Amino acid sequence: MVDKKLVEEITSREVDFAQWYTDVVKKAQLMDYSSIKGCMIFKPRGYAIWENIQKSLDARFKETGVENVYLPMFIPESLLQKEKDHVEGFAPEAAWVTYGGNDELVERLAVRPTSETLFCDLYSNIIHSYRDLPKLYNQWCSVVRWEKTTRPFLRSSEFLWQEGHTAHATAEDAEERTIMMLNLYADFCEQELAIPMIKGKKTDKEKFAGAESTYTIEAMMHDGKALQSGTSHNFGDGFARAFDITYSDKNNELCYVYQTSWGMSTRLIGALIMVHGDDSGLVLPPRIAPVQLMVVPIGQRKEGVMEGCQKLYDSFCDAGVKSVLEDSDKSPGWKFAESEIRGIPLRAELGPKDLAAGQCVLVRRDTREKIPVSIDGAADKAKELLVQIQHDMLERAREFLNTHIYDAYDYEEFKATIENKPGFVRAMWCGNEECENTIKEDTTATSRCMPFEQERIAESCICCGKPAKKLVLWGKAY
Amino acid sequence: MVDKKLVEEITSREVDFAQWYTDVVKKAQLMDYSSIKGCMIFKPRGYAIWENIQKSLDARFKETGVENVYLPMFIPESLLQKEKDHVEGFAPEAAWVTYGGNDELVERLAVRPTSETLFCDLYSNIIHSYRDLPKLYNQWCSVVRWEKTTRPFLRSSEFLWQEGHTAHATAEDAEERTIMMLNLYADFCEQELAIPMIKGKKTDKEKFAGAESTYTIEAMMHDGKALQSGTSHNFGDGFARAFDITYSDKNNELCYVYQTSWGMSTRLIGALIMVHGDDSGLVLPPRIAPVQLMVVPIGQRKEGVMEGCQKLYDSFCDAGVKSVLEDSDKSPGWKFAESEIRGIPLRAELGPKDLAAGQCVLVRRDTREKIPVSIDGAADKAKELLVQIQHDMLERAREFLNTHIYDAYDYEEFKATIENKPGFVRAMWCGNEECENTIKEDTTATSRCMPFEQERIAESCICCGKPAKKLVLWGKAY
Repeated sequence: MVDKKLVEEITSREVDFAQWYTDVVKKAQLMDYSSIKGCMIFKPRGYAIWENIQKSLDARFKETGVENVYLPMFIPESLLQKEKDHVEGFAPEAAWVTYGGNDELVERLAVRPTSETLFCDLYSNIIHSYRDLPKLYNQWCSVVRWEKTTRPFLRSSEFLWQEGHTAHATAEDAEERTIMMLNLYADFCEQELAIPMIKGKKTDKEKFAGAESTYTIEAMMHDGKALQSGTSHNFGDGFARAFDITYSDKNNELCYVYQTSWGMSTRLIGALIMVHGDDSGLVLPPRIAPVQLMVVPIGQRKEGVMEGCQKLYDSFCDAGVKSVLEDSDKSPGWKFAESEIRGIPLRAELGPKDLAAGQCVLVRRDTREKIPVSIDGAADKAKELLVQIQHDMLERAREFLNTHIYDAYDYEEFKATIENKPGFVRAMWCGNEECENTIKEDTTATSRCMPFEQERIAESCICCGKPAKKLVLWGKAY
Repeated sequence: MVDKKLVEEITSREVDFAQWYTDVVKKAQLMDYSSIKGCMIFKPRGYAIWENIQKSLDARFKETGVENVYLPMFIPESLLQKEKDHVEGFAPEAAWVTYGGNDELVERLAVRPTSETLFCDLYSNIIHSYRDLPKLYNQWCSVVRWEKTTRPFLRSSEFLWQEGHTAHATAEDAEERTIMMLNLYADFCEQELAIPMIKGKKTDKEKFAGAESTYTIEAMMHDGKALQSGTSHNFGDGFARAFDITYSDKNNELCYVYQTSWGMSTRLIGALIMVHGDDSGLVLPPRIAPVQLMVVPIGQRKEGVMEGCQKLYDSFCDAGVKSVLEDSDKSPGWKFAESEIRGIPLRAELGPKDLAAGQCVLVRRDTREKIPVSIDGAADKAKELLVQIQHDMLERAREFLNTHIYDAYDYEEFKATIENKPGFVRAMWCGNEECENTIKEDTTATSRCMPFEQERIAESCICCGKPAKKLVLWGKAY
C-alpha cells in the first residue's frame, strides 16, 4: 500500500493548481528557493532532467550542422543599444554590473538577458565572404532577466537555456532555418517529453524585440493555460544593418546577412510537471526520466528477497533500463509513495510470495496498472512497457489538448469560454493590435499564435467585427 | 607537401613562446577576443575540446557518487563576507551588480568568483541528520574574477569550470574525498589529456582563501613553466562554523560538518596547447580530440579518387574514428597544413597512385611518420595508431617532465638553475613563509607544492639554512 501520509502533503490539482505545482516541485526535490531574490537552486533531481534535455536537444542540433560556442556573459551598454527595439525590450529588466573589484567601470555591463548583440558583434568580425556562410552557432548558458514575481522553472531572474544564433546569405535561407528549428523543437517535445505542441507565428505584439517574425510552440498545461515552450525568430537583415554584418557574394558585391535565433529553457521542466503530473506527484516520460525504474523489496529481511531484488536490479541494468534499488530501511509503503512523487515511470515489487511464484510485479506510474511478470522476463517486459508508457503519455496529452480547444464565433461566447472552460479558444482576428489589447483587458487571455494550420472559421474579427485576416489561438498564459 | 605559408604564420616556440601560444590559439581557431575587457569567446573548435573534457570528467565524477546541481550566479555581499579569509581573497576581484533594471539594489551582488558561500548557505538549509550525509554536489558553470591582465584560456575575467562541493560527517571523510578528487584529476589528465601531473600539497601561503589545506596537480609546460591544473581543498569545519552547518549524529548530538571543494577549468586547454603543441600548431591527444582523422584526397578530380576517399571515410566512421573528409577546393598542401595546425592526430592521404596500389597513407601528427596501409585495413590500423599516439604522447610528456626537474642543494645553485634551466627545482624548505617570499623576490619562482613523494635530499632550508621540514617543488608559474 502506498504511504498516504507522504502523498497527502501534496495539494490536489483540482483544489489549487498553483499550490499543487509548488508542492510537487518541492516534494519531488527538483528545486529550492535561494536567498537571492528571484533566483532558484536546481537540485540534483531537477538538474538531472535538464541534463537529459540538453543531451537530446544538443545531439539534434548537431545533426543539422550546429556548432556550440561560448560568448561572454557581459554586454556593454553601448552594444546592447545598437538595435533600437532590442534595447527597449531588454534594458528595463537587465542586471547591471557597475564595479570591477574596487573600480567603478567606465561603461556599465548588462548580465546577458539574451545574446543577440554579442553574436552580432562576433559575426561582424568573422564573416567576410559567402564562403563563411552559413554560421550556425549555439550556446548553453544561463541568462538573467530581473523579474518582480517568480515561479520555479517558469519565471525566475536567472534561468538556464540554449540560444542558437545563425547567419545566412539569403532571406530564404534564414526563414528555412527558423522553421527548421521550430519543427525540431516540436519534434523533440513530442518524442522526448511526450508533450504535443501547437506550432504557429506570433502576432507583432507578441514577437521578440527586434525580430521580423517570431514562431512559437505552445503547450497546454493541465489547468488549460498555455506555456510558450520554445521560440524561433527570423531577424531578416535588421540586426545585420544595425551591426554592419556584411559579406562579399560571388560577384564580389557587399550584402547584409540574414539572421535567426531560437531558444528553449528550463521552462520545459515546468511543462513536464504541469502536463503529466497528478495528485501523487510527478509523472515523467521514460525517455527523459533520470531514473526509469525503482526496485522495491517487500519484506526485505525475509530469506532470498534482497538477493532476488539484486538479481532483478542487475537484469534491468543489463537491459539498459536506468534503475535504482531502494534498499534503505524505509517501509515499502514509503518507497511506493516516493517512487510516485518522483514520477519514476516503473516500479518493480518483489516479496516472498512473488519469489515463491518466480515472479515480480511491475507497476506503471502513469496508469498504476500492476503487471505480474516472470522474474526472467521482467527486464524485457520493462523495456516494452517503457516504450508503451512513452507512447500512451503523448496520446493522453494529445487527447487532452484536442478536447480543450474551442471555436468561438461571437465575442460573448468567446469571453464565456475563456472564462469558464480551461483550454484554448480559436477565433478569427482582424490583424489589429487594438483588438488584442481589448481581449487581454476583458479576459486576461493573449494571442498565443496564428497556428500554421489556418482555417477560416468566420469572416469577421471576434472582437471588432471587421473583416478577419487570421485564425488566432487565444489562451491564458504562464 | 605541407603548405609552408600557413605554418610560417606561427612564430617558432624557441623564438617567442608567448607569441607562439597566441598564434596557435588564433590559427587553430580555438578562441577570439571579445569587445568586453578580459572576456574571451570560445569558438567551435575550442569549445568542442571543453565539451570532451566535460563529458569525460563528468562521467568520472558520477562514478564516485557525485550529483550535479546549479546554484545562482549572484552572491549577496553579506553572504560573501561570512567567512573572513574567503571574502578577503575574492571580494577585491569580484564584479558587482548594483542595479536590477532601473532600481538600485538594496544590497549589491557579486557575480560568483567561486560558490563556496552559496553551497554553504544551501547545506545549512538541507543538512539536518547524519542520514543526509555525505552531500556530494558539483556544478558546471562560468565564474568571474576581474583580471587586469589576461591570456587566452590561462587567465581571463570570465572562465568556464566545474566546482565540486561536498559535506561530510567526519574530518577523515572530508580528507578522503579531497585526496580522491585530486587523484581523479591526475588520472584524468594522464589518461585523457596525456599530461603527467605532480601531486602535492600547497604551502599555507599558496592555499585557497578559507581552506585548511589545498592539494594541487602541477603540470610542466614546454617552456619549463608550471601550470596549476586542478586543486582540491579540505575546509575542515571552518566554513561550517561560519555558516552554522550542523547535523545530529547517531547519538542525537549536534556536530559541525566537514567540507571540501575542488575545481578544474578551461585552463586545461591551455595546458594541452603548451604541453603537446609544436611549431606547426596544435597536437591533440586522440582521446580528447574533437576530430581524430582527416581524409585528404590527392588530385581529387582524378578518376576514382573522391569515391575512394568517401569509402575510406565511411570505413573510419564505421570503426568509430571521429573523421572528416576534406573535400573543399583547397590544395592538398593547404589541407595538410590545416590538419597540422588543428592538431588532428591522424591524416589519411589517398591519390591515384595509392588507389592503383590499393593503399592509402596514414600520417601521424605527433611524429609525422607516414604509414602506408591497405585500404581495407586502414580503419583497423587507424584505431591501433590512435591508441599508440595517445600512449606515446603521454610518455614523451613524462620524459620531458622527468628530465626537467633539478635538485638544488645551495641557494646560489638554486638561483642559477631557476634562472638558466627551464623546468622545476626540488629543494628543502624550513616551513617559513619568509623564505617563500625571499625566493619569489630573488627569482620570481614560487613554491608549486610539497610533493606527495617526499624525500629528504638535504637537512637545511635552501634559503635560510635553518633545519628543513619539507621537500618543495619550485618553479615559475602561469
